[in-house]
Amino acid sequence: MRFAYVNGRFCAHPDAAIHVEDRGFQFADAVYEVWSVRDGRLMDADGHFQRLSRSLAELRIPEPRSRPALERIIRELLRRNRVSNGLVYLQISRGQARRDHAFPKQAITPTIVLTCKRLDFAAADRRAETGIGVITVPDQRWARCDIKTVNLLPNVLAKQAAYEAGAAEAWQVDADGYVTEGSSTNAWIVTKAGKLLTRQADNGILHGITRARILDCAQRLGLEVEERAFTPAEALDAREAFLTSATSFVTPVVSIDGKTVANGAPGSLARALRETYLAEA
Amino acid sequence: MRFAYVNGRFCAHPDAAIHVEDRGFQFADAVYEVWSVRDGRLMDADGHFQRLSRSLAELRIPEPRSRPALERIIRELLRRNRVSNGLVYLQISRGQARRDHAFPKQAITPTIVLTCKRLDFAAADRRAETGIGVITVPDQRWARCDIKTVNLLPNVLAKQAAYEAGAAEAWQVDADGYVTEGSSTNAWIVTKAGKLLTRQADNGILHGITRARILDCAQRLGLEVEERAFTPAEALDAREAFLTSATSFVTPVVSIDGKTVANGAPGSLARALRETYLAEA
Repeated sequence: MRFAYVNGRFCAHPDAAIHVEDRGFQFADAVYEVWSVRDGRLMDADGHFQRLSRSLAELRIPEPRSRPALERIIRELLRRNRVSNGLVYLQISRGQARRDHAFPKQAITPTIVLTCKRLDFAAADRRAETGIGVITVPDQRWARCDIKTVNLLPNVLAKQAAYEAGAAEAWQVDADGYVTEGSSTNAWIVTKAGKLLTRQADNGILHGITRARILDCAQRLGLEVEERAFTPAEALDAREAFLTSATSFVTPVVSIDGKTVANGAPGSLARALRETYLAEA
Repeated sequence: MRFAYVNGRFCAHPDAAIHVEDRGFQFADAVYEVWSVRDGRLMDADGHFQRLSRSLAELRIPEPRSRPALERIIRELLRRNRVSNGLVYLQISRGQARRDHAFPKQAITPTIVLTCKRLDFAAADRRAETGIGVITVPDQRWARCDIKTVNLLPNVLAKQAAYEAGAAEAWQVDADGYVTEGSSTNAWIVTKAGKLLTRQADNGILHGITRARILDCAQRLGLEVEERAFTPAEALDAREAFLTSATSFVTPVVSIDGKTVANGAPGSLARALRETYLAEA
């Protein structure tokens, strides 16, 4: 039996429900976080909790639980579901209210939902061995992708386009022709000169927690790093390309829009960063 | 007692629930429509049903009910709630599935939610008598505002900014300095030369059903009309400004960012269009 946590109580997963007038359902007025769980421990716990606080603050949603309280709930959820390797999903919406675009005039209680599931990290390891293909699509998202909200329909359409093209991810390209990020991952390249590039953490991308940790790893490995946007053409001309996310860590990108990156094999820096990250995590 | 309709059955409104893994809640992967109800009849029924079909088709969500079936449900919902003047809210999401950005590989059943409530149309009439103030805010929304989806967080933030500034609506301004539309209304002006202007129905705005009907009314009144974008400066220099929506019809705008439009009183064309629209509806 699978369990979820909704607004103060654990329940059977099939019974985990929210009201139809939840603002998360009617207005995408909600934020979320995802943690990988390895051997029973939350990966990069600090980073994800800090980003959660920032997302809530940006939308002026009060924090419904302290971090220690959330950690207790997460531990209990993992125990009940017997998950020691997988992910935890947390979503907090502004709460339930009679439908009106503006924030409710009366203070309401935020809705809090937690689920978890097992993940096959061995499959991610295999994908890292072979690498994946990406396509490029126009970035259609809103102006505040730095806030981790559930306004994810453009990401849904981008990911679906990737799958239909036989690729594993879609790199979104802004109006100036620069890659912003994937639909659920950050994008990286290693230039022919050996420099690591990933877009600056502005309002146009999610400030990936794994992204930040990989920047740390790169520094410790003595790599030259620049946070700036790159074009798909630069990526195709690169020595390596890869993506990062909380659940897939580091995954080499071996083709873009059907054209191979470098020799079409995963690069050595992507592998080194993945190993360094997992060894430290 | 208030009733809602969820996935095939009527239920008490407090019990109207959807699963936490509904894609409407986790990805804003859902569309909606709102009809005004006057004297028991849906206003502009055809236009809203046609737009619903288009929104679903754009997202490749199958139509879960035929129009006659939806109309039967709406009639029964209005009857149970004893609403003869108010609004009907319909939301359809792609359905419930284990969380993954892409469309579920197995076909799933869309989630369908209907609610209704009474509206005080007399209050809207009074607002139309005095006019309202709007503010301008940067348009932060995604690239497909023509699809009526629940990716509404930017609209929420815009409306909230308006309320906090003591205004009733926020006109969103694109990167080129042109008004796109309000957070839940379309924007119009009447130039000093007497020409009616409203933005062309491109992907940057919702194709308002009331907007289309007001264009018809304007034609029948013999007004000169141009569908093109205008700037806040043009609006401040205009003879009149107003907004349109399914629940407020036509509402004069008498100030923009605290500066009065023309003499600060509702304009005569806005009034004529409102009366013509309501007489025909």
